[in-house]
Amino acid sequence: MGPVIICVAITGSLPRKRDNPAVPITVAEQIESTHEAFEVGASIAHCHVRNDDGTPTSDPARFAALKEGIERHCPGMIVQLSTGGRSGAGRERGGMIGLRPDMCSLSVGSNNFPARVYENPPDLVDWLAAEMAAHGVLPEVECFDLSHLWQAAAMHRDGRLPRVPYCQFVLGVRNALPADPHAFEAMLAAKRHLLGEAPWCAAGIGRHQLEVNEWAIGAGGHART
Amino acid sequence: MGPVIICVAITGSLPRKRDNPAVPITVAEQIESTHEAFEVGASIAHCHVRNDDGTPTSDPARFAALKEGIERHCPGMIVQLSTGGRSGAGRERGGMIGLRPDMCSLSVGSNNFPARVYENPPDLVDWLAAEMAAHGVLPEVECFDLSHLWQAAAMHRDGRLPRVPYCQFVLGVRNALPADPHAFEAMLAAKRHLLGEAPWCAAGIGRHQLEVNEWAIGAGGHART
Ligand SMILES: [Zn+2]
Ligand SMILES: [Zn+2]
Ligand SMILES: [Zn+2]
Ligand SMILES: [Zn+2]
Repeated sequence: MGPVIICVAITGSLPRKRDNPAVPITVAEQIESTHEAFEVGASIAHCHVRNDDGTPTSDPARFAALKEGIERHCPGMIVQLSTGGRSGAGRERGGMIGLRPDMCSLSVGSNNFPARVYENPPDLVDWLAAEMAAHGVLPEVECFDLSHLWQAAAMHRDGRLPRVPYCQFVLGVRNALPADPHAFEAMLAAKRHLLGEAPWCAAGIGRHQLEVNEWAIGAGGHART
Repeated sequence: MGPVIICVAITGSLPRKRDNPAVPITVAEQIESTHEAFEVGASIAHCHVRNDDGTPTSDPARFAALKEGIERHCPGMIVQLSTGGRSGAGRERGGMIGLRPDMCSLSVGSNNFPARVYENPPDLVDWLAAEMAAHGVLPEVECFDLSHLWQAAAMHRDGRLPRVPYCQFVLGVRNALPADPHAFEAMLAAKRHLLGEAPWCAAGIGRHQLEVNEWAIGAGGHART
């Protein structure tokens, strides 16, 4: 077993200071928190940015400041910027791809979230993938369901994803795929069938985090906090 | 192996006379076509209705006429009315549940279709399930992805689906789960894990129809045209 890649999601798009005073919100707080994680071994920083009031945004200027700070404080750390739908709508979700970070997250299908539909229409998916390809950005494909793995593989086969995508299994979101060992095994079998030994990771949401990290590391995958 | 249940989808929501002159559009045409399928062994009729111009609708009056005609011409045939999202929006999708057909289709999650998001928001799913429960209608859960099986099982466990749901695996819709034997096996393993030996069926879209029917019948499931 090679070294485990730890990807830290320092902030995410949802928690506020009122939920947890320790959550880093400003760019300065995020950089310091990422630096601490880097010093104890994290090698990928999965980044969201916030407005001054704590609400999520896709603002490229804020992403640029965060990326620049992480690159300065954490030399060699891989910067991954989120194009997730909680932070913007339509093409504004991909406004930061032109910053040419190492990686961006990419959703390739739609699914339910706890109280709404997580909408990733096919034309937006294709546009985000094309932007990443044009700027040399490696996608981390967020797989909330089994078909998302097939979609990632199909997009690689037909050239929409020129490099083998790094897939993340996202388990434990209510109304999407649960943090269940059978669901994990189904995802892993499909990933191996479709993408062979390409590196991959898995994330468990909330209380499922450590459990899913253990399953992934035990199966040769990597960890996402 | 017990007898195979054949469910015929006579009309669907999309094809028009200009695509195939044989497709039954009017209620009278649908009743005659269902009668022919019934006489050669089909036991469930999966029904969509159309406006006079051929566009899909959820109009309860048209569903009532079709249901009444099938019950008269095909005694004992199980009538299943579609609550699918191609024929209406929001709660208008469930306006026919009060007709108390034997079954209605029910989507429990969201996914991508060839050119758009198939939106089944959690509150609408719960409302449709509650209407079916209140009217004694058995849902056929349309499973376009793996998480939909988990969602069906969770809804049965917590009482939103009082009866064990009849699940259909829908394979071969572009941008959703493909008609691939590995995807089929993953769905089947999850179904057995979650719902045991409850009856189930599988449908392959378009050119995948016969292939997927063969896989399903070979594995003890039922067939949907
Ligand atoms: Zn994220
Ligand atoms: Zn520092
Ligand atoms: Zn249908
Ligand atoms: Zn007749």
